[in-house]
Amino acid sequence: MKLWGGRFEKRTDKLVEEFTSSLPFDRRLYDEDIRVSDVHAMMLARIGLLTEEEAKSIGKALKDIKKDMEKGIFKFEDSDEDIHTAIERALIEKLGPVGGKLRTARSRNDQAVTDLRLYLKKETAETIKLIEGLQEVLIKRAENDGETVMPGYTHLQKAQPILLGHHLMAYFFMLKRDKERFEDCLESIDRLPLGSGALAGTTFEIDRAYAAKKLGFSGVIENSLDAVSDRDFAIDFMACASICLMHLSRFSEELVLWCSSEFGFVEMDESYATGSSIMPQKKNPDVAELVRAKTGRVYGNLTALLTVMKGLPLAYNRDMQEDKEVLFDTVDTLTSCLKVFSGMLRTLRFNHGKMYDSTYDGFMTATDVADYLADKGMPFKDAHEVVGNIVKHCLGKGMRLTDMSLAEFSDFSALFGRDIIDVIRPRRSVERRATVGSTSPGQVKEQIKTARKLLGRPAGK
Amino acid sequence: MKLWGGRFEKRTDKLVEEFTSSLPFDRRLYDEDIRVSDVHAMMLARIGLLTEEEAKSIGKALKDIKKDMEKGIFKFEDSDEDIHTAIERALIEKLGPVGGKLRTARSRNDQAVTDLRLYLKKETAETIKLIEGLQEVLIKRAENDGETVMPGYTHLQKAQPILLGHHLMAYFFMLKRDKERFEDCLESIDRLPLGSGALAGTTFEIDRAYAAKKLGFSGVIENSLDAVSDRDFAIDFMACASICLMHLSRFSEELVLWCSSEFGFVEMDESYATGSSIMPQKKNPDVAELVRAKTGRVYGNLTALLTVMKGLPLAYNRDMQEDKEVLFDTVDTLTSCLKVFSGMLRTLRFNHGKMYDSTYDGFMTATDVADYLADKGMPFKDAHEVVGNIVKHCLGKGMRLTDMSLAEFSDFSALFGRDIIDVIRPRRSVERRATVGSTSPGQVKEQIKTARKLLGRPAGK
Amino acid sequence: MKLWGGRFEKRTDKLVEEFTSSLPFDRRLYDEDIRVSDVHAMMLARIGLLTEEEAKSIGKALKDIKKDMEKGIFKFEDSDEDIHTAIERALIEKLGPVGGKLRTARSRNDQAVTDLRLYLKKETAETIKLIEGLQEVLIKRAENDGETVMPGYTHLQKAQPILLGHHLMAYFFMLKRDKERFEDCLESIDRLPLGSGALAGTTFEIDRAYAAKKLGFSGVIENSLDAVSDRDFAIDFMACASICLMHLSRFSEELVLWCSSEFGFVEMDESYATGSSIMPQKKNPDVAELVRAKTGRVYGNLTALLTVMKGLPLAYNRDMQEDKEVLFDTVDTLTSCLKVFSGMLRTLRFNHGKMYDSTYDGFMTATDVADYLADKGMPFKDAHEVVGNIVKHCLGKGMRLTDMSLAEFSDFSALFGRDIIDVIRPRRSVERRATVGSTSPGQVKEQIKTARKLLGRPAGK
Amino acid sequence: MKLWGGRFEKRTDKLVEEFTSSLPFDRRLYDEDIRVSDVHAMMLARIGLLTEEEAKSIGKALKDIKKDMEKGIFKFEDSDEDIHTAIERALIEKLGPVGGKLRTARSRNDQAVTDLRLYLKKETAETIKLIEGLQEVLIKRAENDGETVMPGYTHLQKAQPILLGHHLMAYFFMLKRDKERFEDCLESIDRLPLGSGALAGTTFEIDRAYAAKKLGFSGVIENSLDAVSDRDFAIDFMACASICLMHLSRFSEELVLWCSSEFGFVEMDESYATGSSIMPQKKNPDVAELVRAKTGRVYGNLTALLTVMKGLPLAYNRDMQEDKEVLFDTVDTLTSCLKVFSGMLRTLRFNHGKMYDSTYDGFMTATDVADYLADKGMPFKDAHEVVGNIVKHCLGKGMRLTDMSLAEFSDFSALFGRDIIDVIRPRRSVERRATVGSTSPGQVKEQIKTARKLLGRPAGK
Repeated sequence: MKLWGGRFEKRTDKLVEEFTSSLPFDRRLYDEDIRVSDVHAMMLARIGLLTEEEAKSIGKALKDIKKDMEKGIFKFEDSDEDIHTAIERALIEKLGPVGGKLRTARSRNDQAVTDLRLYLKKETAETIKLIEGLQEVLIKRAENDGETVMPGYTHLQKAQPILLGHHLMAYFFMLKRDKERFEDCLESIDRLPLGSGALAGTTFEIDRAYAAKKLGFSGVIENSLDAVSDRDFAIDFMACASICLMHLSRFSEELVLWCSSEFGFVEMDESYATGSSIMPQKKNPDVAELVRAKTGRVYGNLTALLTVMKGLPLAYNRDMQEDKEVLFDTVDTLTSCLKVFSGMLRTLRFNHGKMYDSTYDGFMTATDVADYLADKGMPFKDAHEVVGNIVKHCLGKGMRLTDMSLAEFSDFSALFGRDIIDVIRPRRSVERRATVGSTSPGQVKEQIKTARKLLGRPAGK
Repeated sequence: MKLWGGRFEKRTDKLVEEFTSSLPFDRRLYDEDIRVSDVHAMMLARIGLLTEEEAKSIGKALKDIKKDMEKGIFKFEDSDEDIHTAIERALIEKLGPVGGKLRTARSRNDQAVTDLRLYLKKETAETIKLIEGLQEVLIKRAENDGETVMPGYTHLQKAQPILLGHHLMAYFFMLKRDKERFEDCLESIDRLPLGSGALAGTTFEIDRAYAAKKLGFSGVIENSLDAVSDRDFAIDFMACASICLMHLSRFSEELVLWCSSEFGFVEMDESYATGSSIMPQKKNPDVAELVRAKTGRVYGNLTALLTVMKGLPLAYNRDMQEDKEVLFDTVDTLTSCLKVFSGMLRTLRFNHGKMYDSTYDGFMTATDVADYLADKGMPFKDAHEVVGNIVKHCLGKGMRLTDMSLAEFSDFSALFGRDIIDVIRPRRSVERRATVGSTSPGQVKEQIKTARKLLGRPAGK
Repeated sequence: MKLWGGRFEKRTDKLVEEFTSSLPFDRRLYDEDIRVSDVHAMMLARIGLLTEEEAKSIGKALKDIKKDMEKGIFKFEDSDEDIHTAIERALIEKLGPVGGKLRTARSRNDQAVTDLRLYLKKETAETIKLIEGLQEVLIKRAENDGETVMPGYTHLQKAQPILLGHHLMAYFFMLKRDKERFEDCLESIDRLPLGSGALAGTTFEIDRAYAAKKLGFSGVIENSLDAVSDRDFAIDFMACASICLMHLSRFSEELVLWCSSEFGFVEMDESYATGSSIMPQKKNPDVAELVRAKTGRVYGNLTALLTVMKGLPLAYNRDMQEDKEVLFDTVDTLTSCLKVFSGMLRTLRFNHGKMYDSTYDGFMTATDVADYLADKGMPFKDAHEVVGNIVKHCLGKGMRLTDMSLAEFSDFSALFGRDIIDVIRPRRSVERRATVGSTSPGQVKEQIKTARKLLGRPAGK
Repeated sequence: MKLWGGRFEKRTDKLVEEFTSSLPFDRRLYDEDIRVSDVHAMMLARIGLLTEEEAKSIGKALKDIKKDMEKGIFKFEDSDEDIHTAIERALIEKLGPVGGKLRTARSRNDQAVTDLRLYLKKETAETIKLIEGLQEVLIKRAENDGETVMPGYTHLQKAQPILLGHHLMAYFFMLKRDKERFEDCLESIDRLPLGSGALAGTTFEIDRAYAAKKLGFSGVIENSLDAVSDRDFAIDFMACASICLMHLSRFSEELVLWCSSEFGFVEMDESYATGSSIMPQKKNPDVAELVRAKTGRVYGNLTALLTVMKGLPLAYNRDMQEDKEVLFDTVDTLTSCLKVFSGMLRTLRFNHGKMYDSTYDGFMTATDVADYLADKGMPFKDAHEVVGNIVKHCLGKGMRLTDMSLAEFSDFSALFGRDIIDVIRPRRSVERRATVGSTSPGQVKEQIKTARKLLGRPAGK
């Protein structure tokens, strides 16, 4: 069915029908569309444009349509341009002319975007929950495995020893920002466009506040042109998703590295790894790789919608129909990534021994030695130079820092005392970083405490 | 079925199976996968790794599987990770152990990318044909409607009169570049990766040249690591598609403008326009709008794959599985845009009168007046100034250039003669632009002649 | 000068020095770097790592360096890798070894990102002010020019009459969202990374809260790894800028359309338009075109940084140096666009008559006629059909809706009464759209009132 | 100076002058602009629009202006909108009215794009040379270091042993495609737009073929509208650059991995590495990191120009001025990356021993064992299963494959013979991969031979 046609004499070309149809993807919004129609009918009854009876019969018919949709027995027709048309057509088939009254004081322009906002509110709330779920996994692993001393890297070169818990909590705080971002996003979604008509509002004395309340929106959009032309909320969601997945892509990259035989820091659970059709020994971190890759996919979605919206004059243009597929794909991609990432992280095994042993390579406490000298009064700049020479010396001899004797240290500076031998131990290095935000066990515990508070769940629950 | 598992003790998590499965989208490659397997079997027979009989039974079973796929009765199983696994599983169910021999000297890494190249070769050839189809429409409309004088714009301000045919041929030449680009792309696709194994080649003495010939590839890829790690051809296609759609988006923008009531230069055929659910008078250029928007979508796909491939170490990484959906979507989007755009352009009606009348506004022959003076010896810079003043004069009086008398012209410069009255006629302006590439009727005919030659079809065919 | 080198025996290659140097762009941060160093020195004194005297002499020397920078007489050296090195070098030249002490408990990793956050805090606040400035222009123009009835469009086809003020206020509310977005962004910037060292924090007992307070940050970042690895705030800013410019690009597109001779709705002030080197009559809306284009540029910057950050393992990687140029360019582009757009909008002239006259074309009150019938009890669906036929009738006769007599209306439905003649007047159409968010004069006044309240400035100020 | 103004009564706003000026970046094109003007003058003389003397004086004055530019003593004025205006102004200052004649039969629209094509032709040729230079380094390193057996990876998991030379040659062939792409690009740049005027061509009887020949273009563009509206060539270059840098980003990622202490496969030369301001032991692969990051920057540039060009109506729009900065930045970024990458690769040291030893871990010859069984008649599917079990056995015992005795092998299959002991040696695995494109020493030599032929330089030169 078409919702228009009076002024047309020719049928739409088959190719055009297919090209312009949004039904293949917007049928996902059937539940939202039905809720919106139901509330619209109640509102029309409230202001006297429908009788109570009409509104009720519409409500009942919508319920039946919903059931048919859920059972998969709803019959779509080729000429249904979109989910809104399909439902209105079915309504008229069921109720006759009364079904046609639902279109009073409403346009597809405000209806479609209301459906989309309803949908995205639900999905954003779900996303926030999934983020919290992953944060919970991070906290638990930090609590249970976090005391291990492991190498911290910059430039993928060994830099300074850190606690595994410190590393895990870094991701907790990235996700904290993600959550806040999605919360801001949720606020921006939570406004009702319904009642804006095609673009200019409506001549009927509708009650938008009532509709907003019934649909659970916090308020109505103040300008009808803006209401039907605005897709900021979808872009906001995709920008948030891009950044969130960027964070997961970083962790994924690390997990790919860490389960290489060279690093050997983690072992994926077999239920979260896959093999090779040709190489019998392979156990691949496919989940981490795919999460990393899907980040690019979501960037692409963001690029697409930003590009679509650029330079569009007000109000609605058909270009805006391209909002849905990229948004749906972003929602699906992000939520599945969050789920599977949580599972992967929960089940993987840390090789604590390997991590710890690894901190003895790469002169990871060289900064501690320089700090030691600076603490004894040598300008840091000079201390840096001295330790650089010590490193050069060790490299030449094939020694580690912990192989150095006090005597050897003293060759480089008279300031070295016997305590230097303690200073160069990786665990000691970690313990001594005890200011706010640093990697000492105490500070990591503080972070976990803060995190628990933010999540609102006591430890062990 | 899984193609691996020997070293695993645990089942893959359900969530992971779903997350990593490519079957929902790579089943599109079933035909290519079957062709590749058939040729691989023949090749294995040729080098003695299969008996003739085995190869034949495999060939026959593959044919049966293909039929089942085409009839839609092939039974996929949840554990089928991808189309390759599904087909191998079915083969083994049909043939027993012989089916398992097909995996000799082959990996999914080289198999999957061979399928994809086969597919994209076909689609690129199809794309080139669709471009030629649109070029043909452009030529025909230029031949039949091209003599109309219309406004040419810069900055969307009226600039100089041009022929409609000149405008249409501008798009012909953009599409000419698109076609060449896709031809270059086709060459880059046309190389066989099969025989590269997982990454290092194979220990079996396979005959890659034979497989290339049988599958219609022009040659084999020289380096096995490169063969399985390379997705340039997919990026190439998406870059070509982005530029091609960018061209169509420009024409679409113009058509949207031109069928506004303000311009009124074209009327969409009713079979290529749609209406509004609320505004009974509307006839909207949805096709042009959607083509314009889908340009953004394809940009997004390009961004996605470029991002996915950035920084991936050799050889295959699971990230590369993300190549398919964006590529398939790009192919589908581009081909449907080309088809529907051709139809729209073929059926739309030009309002020749409106176009022509419109050239009398906006002082469109002001440059001709300046050229006139320059031709009489005034430095162009000064001529520009003089005509600027004439325009200011007209604006003040609410006059058009063609309302000016010789006497009035003479007030601005003694160089004006009576022939100036001819010079300011829009059609004359067009006729006088007669050098190569300019807009005179003769030059536009030359362009059409060149175009016909490039397309290889004589006029009227 | 280099801040490292002890373990190196070879000089850095000239090409590498140039390639890796960030001085050409990060010198913009000299003021922030000096402030951060000054506060760091005070903090070191506070915890006893510098004497008061040392801190003071450092403070004084920094002041001198700043003056030299501002006068443009500071001497950079080829070997200065970045602004931090240049300033530290100069400090040591001035003070000797004491200058080298400033590096205690600090790394370039935390220092550089502290500088960048300080800078972006300032620029974000400035951006918010510029947005408010543009909002103010919108309100003023809506107050002074807003009562004009003009065509509202969908699909760039005439849709329904609206008030110019309604159109202008649509942009006000887009900018309102932009402002809120930048305010959220500002919060995310406003956290101090200093004290995180290279990645693991520091062994010195520093006072981060003190530094935060002195530098005006609202708090310290909780995890040192996150602190040096995080560039979310820069991406946030660029996402906000992308959306804000997307809004301006839409308005720019409209202004380009509106000052075409076909629309003729606005005239750019001559001080905001440019001419052509060859066509003496041209007056081009270059500012609007460039704002539209620069939107693409900022999208590119966003894409760039998102791509750079994808898949980076913790903590700092040199890749992150690429954050600055795209961020600086985004700041410069956005702020100049906001400024010049405000000026353009403030100075342009609306052609009220042309706008109003234009509402009589295109059957813009057809919806009102359908609403009229629906109001009389006809299902909207049927009313739509009837009015579609009226439009068809008018098209055939070359009539406008306002040319229809009551008798002619009655031929299409018996429900039409004499009041239909009033209903089809564009101004009446606008007046009747009087629910919240609709385009009636009363509602537009409400919007302006809301807007004034949001801006915190009474009318006339 | 402005090239227009006759019809204007007001000065351009200062802010607008700054905002629209392209001089800060297009001054880079001064040499091209002068060459184009010189040829244009000669052409005008040839067709009698200038006297020989006038053309000569213009040529001489242009030469002087060029000298001033090169010496840095050319005086730009604030009102110079772009390099074209600046040069024309200077010309008129030198020659008086004759200078103004140069604008005959030319517009900034065709002039600017001619300059840009000239520039990009030169830079593309230079880029191709730099690619060849890097290919040469790859060949040399493959010749000198290529025989080392190293681990090949998929999913960053050890997969199969390969030759270092094979790995290096994979990049050679990627760069081969890059070179071909830039050669295609060069062809698309190599067409002359000059003579297309503002958009419609020119009324003067100019000789475009002459100008093309003098400027070294292979032909003229066939349609004047297309000539001034087309920026495909710039997008082509940026797409090529994106793919080329994508390749370098992959190699960069590998180098970052390889010089981690975990992999230890390479050591950067000290002249190509940098240190840390705080950690004295650090030696960071900054060059590789920055090349990887700058890939994102160039992706951003591509996104920007694609977005700018989307939906632009013909012909020239000011939006297109945004082509230059992103193009220049792409040229600069790509050429500097190619140069510095070549140097880094030329100077780095491969740790052959570390690479070779590493192939004994990770069961890298498991596929060879499966192939061995398949060769003896076991279906590959079953062989894969058997070897999976062997791997599981080894993992349990902490054994390598090479630790297995024949007896132990025989426990898993009766098909194992004594030659299996040879089969599991990494070098043997490589040697046995001897078909076209595989990794055996013979095949790698073939690749090098092919590569040398492609580069046109015999070995040792």
